[in-house]
Amino acid sequence: MTIDDFIKNTGQWLKGTGEHSNIVMSSRVRLARNLAKRPFPNKARKKDLEEILSTVHETVNEIEHFKDSIFLKISELDNIDKQFLIERHLMSHEHAANPDGKALVVSPEEVLSVMINEEDHLRIQVMQSGFNLDETWRIADSVDDALSSKLDFAYSIQWGYLTACPTNTGTAMRGSVMLHLPALVTTKQINKVLAAISKLNFASRGFYGEGTQASGNFYQISNQVSMGHSEQEVIQNINGLIRQVIEQEEQARQALLLQNKPMLEDKIFRSCGLLRNAHIISSQETVELLSMVRLGVDLGIIKDVDRKTINELFIMIQPAHLQKIEGKKLTATERDTKRAALIRQKIDGG
Amino acid sequence: MTIDDFIKNTGQWLKGTGEHSNIVMSSRVRLARNLAKRPFPNKARKKDLEEILSTVHETVNEIEHFKDSIFLKISELDNIDKQFLIERHLMSHEHAANPDGKALVVSPEEVLSVMINEEDHLRIQVMQSGFNLDETWRIADSVDDALSSKLDFAYSIQWGYLTACPTNTGTAMRGSVMLHLPALVTTKQINKVLAAISKLNFASRGFYGEGTQASGNFYQISNQVSMGHSEQEVIQNINGLIRQVIEQEEQARQALLLQNKPMLEDKIFRSCGLLRNAHIISSQETVELLSMVRLGVDLGIIKDVDRKTINELFIMIQPAHLQKIEGKKLTATERDTKRAALIRQKIDGG
Repeated sequence: MTIDDFIKNTGQWLKGTGEHSNIVMSSRVRLARNLAKRPFPNKARKKDLEEILSTVHETVNEIEHFKDSIFLKISELDNIDKQFLIERHLMSHEHAANPDGKALVVSPEEVLSVMINEEDHLRIQVMQSGFNLDETWRIADSVDDALSSKLDFAYSIQWGYLTACPTNTGTAMRGSVMLHLPALVTTKQINKVLAAISKLNFASRGFYGEGTQASGNFYQISNQVSMGHSEQEVIQNINGLIRQVIEQEEQARQALLLQNKPMLEDKIFRSCGLLRNAHIISSQETVELLSMVRLGVDLGIIKDVDRKTINELFIMIQPAHLQKIEGKKLTATERDTKRAALIRQKIDGG
Repeated sequence: MTIDDFIKNTGQWLKGTGEHSNIVMSSRVRLARNLAKRPFPNKARKKDLEEILSTVHETVNEIEHFKDSIFLKISELDNIDKQFLIERHLMSHEHAANPDGKALVVSPEEVLSVMINEEDHLRIQVMQSGFNLDETWRIADSVDDALSSKLDFAYSIQWGYLTACPTNTGTAMRGSVMLHLPALVTTKQINKVLAAISKLNFASRGFYGEGTQASGNFYQISNQVSMGHSEQEVIQNINGLIRQVIEQEEQARQALLLQNKPMLEDKIFRSCGLLRNAHIISSQETVELLSMVRLGVDLGIIKDVDRKTINELFIMIQPAHLQKIEGKKLTATERDTKRAALIRQKIDGG
């Protein structure tokens, strides 16, 4: 498998299946791990980083979870490939920015991935479609067990897993759920919901990662605190919160339907009509229209498009994806044309 | 034939055929005639009006041109029917406003119509699809000949045909051509063109008649002066002017294609997509979108819609038409929904 093979498929987490997949796009667990007695990446010399990389690479190759995985040295990737992996939610901007001694391991269907020598020696990520944080955690835990059996992780009885940034110390786990909340946005209840989430010490981010604004009415909600609770407790807390948000979004959707179904249908069908007919379209407009179409699919208003297609488009319409698909560099104007053509093909052809 | 039969068809002038029908929707000739020794309608008593009406009705019934025509007493029509006939370009608001002693005669396919006791005793209108003012004039002239052989029209050797308003005296003829000028509007040349038209003593009106603003990029251009030239001379003058406007619109369309075909295509396809998908739509938005789709059809960009369908929609999406089609009164909100449904049906079903 090479990086170009990624274009032919999309991640399992975009399948649009699983519990509450009408509202929850995906569940994600991330573990931070560091090798004992090795400097954290930000303090490590190049030689240290390369030794760590080599050690982790060898270990990964021996573990069943990573069968048929792809191993990518970031320094060997060009800018489009790096951007492509960021767009795919497989690695961070930081990981791409200073590539020395860094690598990325990605399992088939992108369920499991590991950034090596990002902020920590290992950033293990597991993603699953739908509201499925328990299973996501189980996979992450078993990967951690397998790695722990071969690697000596930095761990303190008092503090838990040691990490480069103290906010991660403890479980070094972040669980997050990507929610599609168009009705809470439309009914202007979203800020109230986000304020409550923030008060409960959970973080909310946009679809396109840390530091991004919410777009397409997607909100990624995750725990802020890693210390003081077991992983299971943290997962249960997130689950409880997410169930409430899902309930509120469901109620807001029903309220929208009751109050003015014709206007909602009009907005949804128009969005679909624009996506099916535009010949030039920006990312921003695309994401807004896709959000409406996704809501239309989830409410049974749009019947000839499936959720997976829409989910995948949120990823595929990004700049590096368009350039990988086209097989060459594209200007912003060319991308707007290619994006429109791709959408027409995907939404019409099914 | 009854007024309800009109719904099943539309006028010949909407067929989208004839010379330059990519730019010229229709050609129209209107003649004003008054019976000699009778007061003009604005000075006539009710009894006079009824005698005039009766005389004209009898005469019309004897003339071949009016075979299978429908004769409608305005006082017998309800408000929706009156509005319906106005929307169809068959009679004026003035004719509907004060219905006493007034009538309307309409021939099959709406090629020929006569308002009886509007501003003048007879307002004879002939409409044809495309740029076809010569043929339109020939039909009007032969109708006039036939009527003249049976009616004594008020005529002065010195002044020509006498009319209630002196601006019509002389030929009492108005020739007009309905032009679709989206490229001149888009390239912001339209005001220059309209200024030149005005300087040459021609008038410019909107699609929806006298006093209406240009909408859907339609401009109806007609002669202002009725006196001092023969009918043929007036027609030739209009023809000459219209040929120039057509040439300018053609050049503007080519310029748009050369400068930015993708952006033009995007706008056209998006317009078509919105019309095919909207579930609630205002008249104003409809007319703007239809104009873009008509341009798309005329440039060969849209291939699965025909010009006749688009032309007809400009008429059918009006309030009274929607209510006649639905067979009942509709609120503004209901009309916006019905309009969208009608458009989807017409543009999708072909």
